[in-house]
Amino acid sequence: MATQAPSRRLLNEAQEAEIQEARGVENRTRRVSVPALEEILYEPIPVLDHGFIRVVDYMGDDSAIVQSARVSYGKGTKQTRGDAGLINYLMRHRHTTPFEMCEIKFHVKLPIFIARQWIRHRTANVNEYSARYSVLDKEFYIPAPEHLAAQSTTNRQGRGDVLQGADAARVLDLLREDAAHCYENYEQMLNERHDGSTIEEGRAGLARELARMNLPLNTYTQWYWKCDLHNLLHFVSLRADPHAQYEIRAYAEAILETLKRWVPVTTAAFTNYVVEGTQLSGAALRVVRGLIAGETPSQEDSGLSKREWEELMAVLDRKA
Amino acid sequence: MATQAPSRRLLNEAQEAEIQEARGVENRTRRVSVPALEEILYEPIPVLDHGFIRVVDYMGDDSAIVQSARVSYGKGTKQTRGDAGLINYLMRHRHTTPFEMCEIKFHVKLPIFIARQWIRHRTANVNEYSARYSVLDKEFYIPAPEHLAAQSTTNRQGRGDVLQGADAARVLDLLREDAAHCYENYEQMLNERHDGSTIEEGRAGLARELARMNLPLNTYTQWYWKCDLHNLLHFVSLRADPHAQYEIRAYAEAILETLKRWVPVTTAAFTNYVVEGTQLSGAALRVVRGLIAGETPSQEDSGLSKREWEELMAVLDRKA
Amino acid sequence: MATQAPSRRLLNEAQEAEIQEARGVENRTRRVSVPALEEILYEPIPVLDHGFIRVVDYMGDDSAIVQSARVSYGKGTKQTRGDAGLINYLMRHRHTTPFEMCEIKFHVKLPIFIARQWIRHRTANVNEYSARYSVLDKEFYIPAPEHLAAQSTTNRQGRGDVLQGADAARVLDLLREDAAHCYENYEQMLNERHDGSTIEEGRAGLARELARMNLPLNTYTQWYWKCDLHNLLHFVSLRADPHAQYEIRAYAEAILETLKRWVPVTTAAFTNYVVEGTQLSGAALRVVRGLIAGETPSQEDSGLSKREWEELMAVLDRKA
Amino acid sequence: MATQAPSRRLLNEAQEAEIQEARGVENRTRRVSVPALEEILYEPIPVLDHGFIRVVDYMGDDSAIVQSARVSYGKGTKQTRGDAGLINYLMRHRHTTPFEMCEIKFHVKLPIFIARQWIRHRTANVNEYSARYSVLDKEFYIPAPEHLAAQSTTNRQGRGDVLQGADAARVLDLLREDAAHCYENYEQMLNERHDGSTIEEGRAGLARELARMNLPLNTYTQWYWKCDLHNLLHFVSLRADPHAQYEIRAYAEAILETLKRWVPVTTAAFTNYVVEGTQLSGAALRVVRGLIAGETPSQEDSGLSKREWEELMAVLDRKA
Repeated sequence: MATQAPSRRLLNEAQEAEIQEARGVENRTRRVSVPALEEILYEPIPVLDHGFIRVVDYMGDDSAIVQSARVSYGKGTKQTRGDAGLINYLMRHRHTTPFEMCEIKFHVKLPIFIARQWIRHRTANVNEYSARYSVLDKEFYIPAPEHLAAQSTTNRQGRGDVLQGADAARVLDLLREDAAHCYENYEQMLNERHDGSTIEEGRAGLARELARMNLPLNTYTQWYWKCDLHNLLHFVSLRADPHAQYEIRAYAEAILETLKRWVPVTTAAFTNYVVEGTQLSGAALRVVRGLIAGETPSQEDSGLSKREWEELMAVLDRKA
Repeated sequence: MATQAPSRRLLNEAQEAEIQEARGVENRTRRVSVPALEEILYEPIPVLDHGFIRVVDYMGDDSAIVQSARVSYGKGTKQTRGDAGLINYLMRHRHTTPFEMCEIKFHVKLPIFIARQWIRHRTANVNEYSARYSVLDKEFYIPAPEHLAAQSTTNRQGRGDVLQGADAARVLDLLREDAAHCYENYEQMLNERHDGSTIEEGRAGLARELARMNLPLNTYTQWYWKCDLHNLLHFVSLRADPHAQYEIRAYAEAILETLKRWVPVTTAAFTNYVVEGTQLSGAALRVVRGLIAGETPSQEDSGLSKREWEELMAVLDRKA
Repeated sequence: MATQAPSRRLLNEAQEAEIQEARGVENRTRRVSVPALEEILYEPIPVLDHGFIRVVDYMGDDSAIVQSARVSYGKGTKQTRGDAGLINYLMRHRHTTPFEMCEIKFHVKLPIFIARQWIRHRTANVNEYSARYSVLDKEFYIPAPEHLAAQSTTNRQGRGDVLQGADAARVLDLLREDAAHCYENYEQMLNERHDGSTIEEGRAGLARELARMNLPLNTYTQWYWKCDLHNLLHFVSLRADPHAQYEIRAYAEAILETLKRWVPVTTAAFTNYVVEGTQLSGAALRVVRGLIAGETPSQEDSGLSKREWEELMAVLDRKA
Repeated sequence: MATQAPSRRLLNEAQEAEIQEARGVENRTRRVSVPALEEILYEPIPVLDHGFIRVVDYMGDDSAIVQSARVSYGKGTKQTRGDAGLINYLMRHRHTTPFEMCEIKFHVKLPIFIARQWIRHRTANVNEYSARYSVLDKEFYIPAPEHLAAQSTTNRQGRGDVLQGADAARVLDLLREDAAHCYENYEQMLNERHDGSTIEEGRAGLARELARMNLPLNTYTQWYWKCDLHNLLHFVSLRADPHAQYEIRAYAEAILETLKRWVPVTTAAFTNYVVEGTQLSGAALRVVRGLIAGETPSQEDSGLSKREWEELMAVLDRKA
């Protein structure tokens, strides 16, 4: 489970009051509205130790996808296919433009090193809290002990076993100490504490746009992030994948939960065709045909690399 | 004035009933809602002889821009600057990302040769009625007589005087006849009339994806088109410009009217900084400084081309 | 085969001379250069009856992909993995950014109704010959008889059998006559023939931006089109697909041939993983596992629609 | 001046050898080639204390812009206008697509907090050195004393006076110490030194993707970055602007120098129309007209804010 119980406060009182006020509003609209999503609108969903996502606006729903597709296909699609059938058809045939007709906006709080991965998705709109203008909060990501993975020795990208005992404790100590130390010096350079008070009257503080360079990459930042549904599903397919780094996966999984509320039919199609599906290469497809025909193809003759062979056997629930 | 009185029906009865039904809906939402825009939601606004735009969905308003900008600025923002002041500031300093946080969706009916210009704006989402799947309607753009401009003799791009009398009548006749003729043969090739009836039982019709190639470029098509506010303002700045072709300008001006309802503060800033504003080159700026200092700079010494000089004098309300 | 023998001249003498001149140039460069692509640089490759593609510039090659990926991987990359292995790995794991580091520019001549499909690929740069400024050439796409397909009766999108005898002849006659007729009236409205001569001295011609609306959608247009390799492969995967309309498929296949010259290792990986590969949904994967285990799953129990079941059986080379 | 004398080695011996080898290559090509740019191809141009940019590939030149524009405008433009005149025209009228037809690729080394600003330009292709796979180099940006600016007291965004004496020394000490300290603990967590040696045999190191979070934002990273000329000019116009942070301005100015070599005609037009030019709002334009007419408009009546008025007077070389 990606999200964690909000054992500690995510927001200060002023922020909570602001959210409660927004949630208290009841507007009337002729636009489509999605009650299951309205229910959690504006509410922060905790991710990692200090992070969250919260839905702050949206446009469209499953029916908007169908409506847009029907402009494309005209009367032809109207009679013969139900909405779910049409959405399945669009997902299966990579007719992606109708999914672009829905839009969602999140407020996200996340560690900077994860923000750097996230921002690589270019087809989205972003407004980030600026450390040129403002003083960053004193909050750092410190992994939970069960996520303190060792470097994998077989895979340069992956994580190995979880660090234990003294090794784990030492890492956590170093992370905490260095973050605290760097932040303290950040305040010293600014000559300003994060509560806005001055440290030493009359001394000039370093420009904020410079002082921030002393902060470590696990410092939390936040942004508004807006994306259409097609590109959001692409984001989720890459970032909720087991190959993705755990920390961004936690955010992708929290987003996937909000999608189930917003566009349940599309999310079900996405789960079947993408999340639970697999891409077979031409060579892999030939192996599959052989297996079905009762042959016993070998990795050596298959044209697959050893790694590909192992992955194919895993997908087929067979021992390599 | 871009729009025209709907002297003739834009929609058939089924379409009108559908729109009335959509307009009759009243949903509740915690999202921001814009009453002035809700008022015209779903309603077609006539453009050209058979075209229209209609707003079918939207997300955000002026306050959403401010909200997004303040994540950027956080505590650093001068709390004294009002919303309009901040929006002016953003517009003036080309801080475009907060404007990307609003989104709007239109249903547009337009002639194909205009659709070809429109689609060049790539940062938008589109679902077009497909003539691969469906039979196109029998509707063609025929210019009003006052827009039947001659080719300019001084400017390859521009229009000259309006054609008169027999010259004008002849052009209109040719356009009407060729459109009718081509459409009739389109039906013949399909072996299907636009009401869906078969022309000759038992004869195979040409594939729709092929038959459509016989239609002229003034045939109407339609699409759903979704765009964020920043990119929409860019579209309007280029397409509501006097250099733009009249027919697309008519659509851009109709869009600008809907913007006044949706985001009045932003539209006012856009009008001041972009529509009524001007870009001066370095060389033009030197001329302006000279004029203010009471000098009499000449085109020859200015580094401006003759055309640029004339345009500058026009902008300054001076005779060239 | 997508391309056709250039039985007729694609270019006039001036154009051929220009191309010969460009091909005669021999510049020196420190950039990577691809001899197999240089061989055909600037030369038109015929597509359809009057169309062509020609490569007019390029940047990078297979080694540039590897180089870019190794910045990503730096010292971390296993130095033992060869270039082909790395390119296969990138393709398989959808690490698309290194493929974006290669760029290619085409000059394309194509019918307008195909240009309208093509332009939907937004991640590309385009300069189209403008019929606002210039008079379009008198050239129209008339399908070869073997591509004169009837509308499919089972599939709204597809083509059925090829029209025969009198039915085919009649369609070809109508297409030819209407194109000729519309073009003649286009010239009349312009009061200018396509060779630039005036039809009737002293009469004002209609503005070009208006007169063009009388031309049919099979009129040829042309553009410069520039795209990075990742997005080009995406274009090819969608447009060289059997579901794509024949006419755009012809262009996509011609492009694929140029890719084999330019980036042979990438093209081989693309062929294996994408062209010859297949995407299985979760439900389809469960059927495949059952078949390998010797079970006899049925469509009814599979969760697949009838159409999906048939497609899966076809992919597996089994009778449905 | 943005760049600094390479008083210290930017590259290690292996990297220098690699660059010398690339520079030694002489390929033949039918493509356009730009000798002034070839001269510096692959060579690092120093920026800040450890950073650089180097051009590693390019496509097109000024003539490619003209060629692409002439496809658009047909014969019309060929005779009447020289290449420079056409490029000026395109720049002035915001006809941006021909500039998209040129492409350039840089290898850039830069501090992470600057990389975070840079990456906001989405219309570009990027491959960054990955700290998930590899150990980052032990290099940090430490500002030169003359760039150690205080926070402006009048402008939240800007820098104020330069810190002096003990204040400056203290900031530099803190930055150096914290960077060194954090990096040492990064190695400790990895159980690996940056030269690849193991610190303590038999101890499991933390995964690289996690350990990197302990590094400060002034750590250097590097990437391959590819961009078309239109979007590159947009980047330069925003980032070489006096409002931009000094550190990214240093990179933008270095890029501008390479543009002068690559596309001198375009760079001259860009300098005149954009760098030395200015955008006047409608209200500002009315003030300018008044001044030229010998009136004495006041800020109060102008509709300009105080800040806008001051900026206008500065642009006009007048006292506010």
